[in-house]
Amino acid sequence: MISLPQVIECKAAVAWEPKKPLSLETIQVAPPKAGEVRIKIVSTAICHTDAYTLDGLDSEGKFPCVLGHEGSGIVESVGEGVTSVAPGDHVIPLYIPQCNECKFCKSSKTNLCTKIRTTQGEGVMPDGTTRFTCKGQQLYHFMGCSTFSEYTVVAEISLCKVAAEAPLEKVCLLGCGVSTGYGAVLIICCVAAEAPLDKVCLLGQTQTNLKQLQRAALESCHKGWGVSTIIGVAAAGQEISTRPFQLVTGRTWKGTAFGGWKSRDSVPRLVNQYLDGKLMLDEFVSHVMNFDKINAGFDLLHSGKSIRTVLNY
Amino acid sequence: MISLPQVIECKAAVAWEPKKPLSLETIQVAPPKAGEVRIKIVSTAICHTDAYTLDGLDSEGKFPCVLGHEGSGIVESVGEGVTSVAPGDHVIPLYIPQCNECKFCKSSKTNLCTKIRTTQGEGVMPDGTTRFTCKGQQLYHFMGCSTFSEYTVVAEISLCKVAAEAPLEKVCLLGCGVSTGYGAVLIICCVAAEAPLDKVCLLGQTQTNLKQLQRAALESCHKGWGVSTIIGVAAAGQEISTRPFQLVTGRTWKGTAFGGWKSRDSVPRLVNQYLDGKLMLDEFVSHVMNFDKINAGFDLLHSGKSIRTVLNY
Repeated sequence: MISLPQVIECKAAVAWEPKKPLSLETIQVAPPKAGEVRIKIVSTAICHTDAYTLDGLDSEGKFPCVLGHEGSGIVESVGEGVTSVAPGDHVIPLYIPQCNECKFCKSSKTNLCTKIRTTQGEGVMPDGTTRFTCKGQQLYHFMGCSTFSEYTVVAEISLCKVAAEAPLEKVCLLGCGVSTGYGAVLIICCVAAEAPLDKVCLLGQTQTNLKQLQRAALESCHKGWGVSTIIGVAAAGQEISTRPFQLVTGRTWKGTAFGGWKSRDSVPRLVNQYLDGKLMLDEFVSHVMNFDKINAGFDLLHSGKSIRTVLNY
Repeated sequence: MISLPQVIECKAAVAWEPKKPLSLETIQVAPPKAGEVRIKIVSTAICHTDAYTLDGLDSEGKFPCVLGHEGSGIVESVGEGVTSVAPGDHVIPLYIPQCNECKFCKSSKTNLCTKIRTTQGEGVMPDGTTRFTCKGQQLYHFMGCSTFSEYTVVAEISLCKVAAEAPLEKVCLLGCGVSTGYGAVLIICCVAAEAPLDKVCLLGQTQTNLKQLQRAALESCHKGWGVSTIIGVAAAGQEISTRPFQLVTGRTWKGTAFGGWKSRDSVPRLVNQYLDGKLMLDEFVSHVMNFDKINAGFDLLHSGKSIRTVLNY
């Protein structure tokens, strides 16, 4: 006799509305439906994209919601038809899924799977509903991940199984920040290997100087063959500008999301690279806290004093 | 006994100051110095870049000057050390030279020879002086070509010999417009051959809607792998803008000058392609006039009624 998955009551940090601190609540997490997986989150880091949305800068942000997209955990239960993971597997949720069916997945030129883009952008699961409830109210999902909850539900195409021996409180960083930055650097190095670049510019980005830095990065590129790659998100309404002359004289302006990685294929390999000592992760963890201190973690991020704060449940 | 080249008196359309019609004058054209070539211009077309400068929109435009950069002619005399052309050769002046010595010429990634960039931008020959005089006043050169004169002097690296049987009143268009457009289309087709583009966008450009069209061209590119290529010049101070999201989702913004062609290597081949019936030129000549009607040609350009007006001396 099989016991069917039940609703789980657990702790979560709920974003009831923009520009307010997160609220620690007991929420209800429904069982995974067909093609979905319920995960017990072990660790989650705080990324600028969570802060952007909480600050109301993402015009498409839906509230109330459960934020968080850079996490790691263990499969608790799986919905009908799920074959790639099983309860007990160690996994990383992926905000860019990989369905291997859409024309974007079938192209080697991009990692931007569009299979569930619309519903993910609307803060719901692929069937149009949410799995989170708090005080009788539905909570929206965020970036297909919602790792600021002890338990979350994601689409099977939005997570990958990783080596069981990988420390979950470290490899959570591969869910966004480190993968994005590492991929962008690899892209730059590929370009550098082809052309005699005078220098490789790596410019940090903060909310206030994003626009100016991106312009400077392009215009400091080498005439004739320089390539500048934009990563990360920008607040609603922000634009980048340059004189057409900068492009006509041979500079190229590109961008990348999640470092260009095909997510399900690549993240397990990045985890293995970390285990083999070939990829740094520990160095990016500047602070470790209990999940209950999540608002203090956001304060650290805004103060500019943290690289990555990892929260453990 | 060798007769040394003398100063030539001839007809030219002088731009005394911005925003005024050109003035037909008798000017003096000095003999070519070392590494220079004096050309009898046979035909010249009028390009938007000439009109931009005459309209005062190029903040670096120098006056008084002899405009014109899309022409063809016959070598009249050569300066010391010139070996690649001889009197009687049919030639096309090239506003992007090809020295084969600078690091840009040595790279396969760009055609932007910088050998004489500074002096060309200042409206003088590589030795810092001009070859044009009118009423006792020095006239500046323009884009290293100055084809709005019956005789002009250019650097040896700024012209190429073309097949003698090519009609000069047609192949003058390969000095700028057709080479630029054809090269940009080839670049787009190379990209298209690598990726399943939904469409290839070719958007015309006019002074007033340049900025909006360039943005539209980028944003209508395919997510994930679309490439938009900017060609041509922009008025001083004009900028292009987009949201970083457009690049982060896989679009690439590039530019090209003179269609990306290495000028001295490529233009003679383009002339041969025309002679072989593989490249259209005749179709772009919408009007033919005597050189004396040059201001009427500018009026046609501003009215939008001409594709290319060719002026014959």
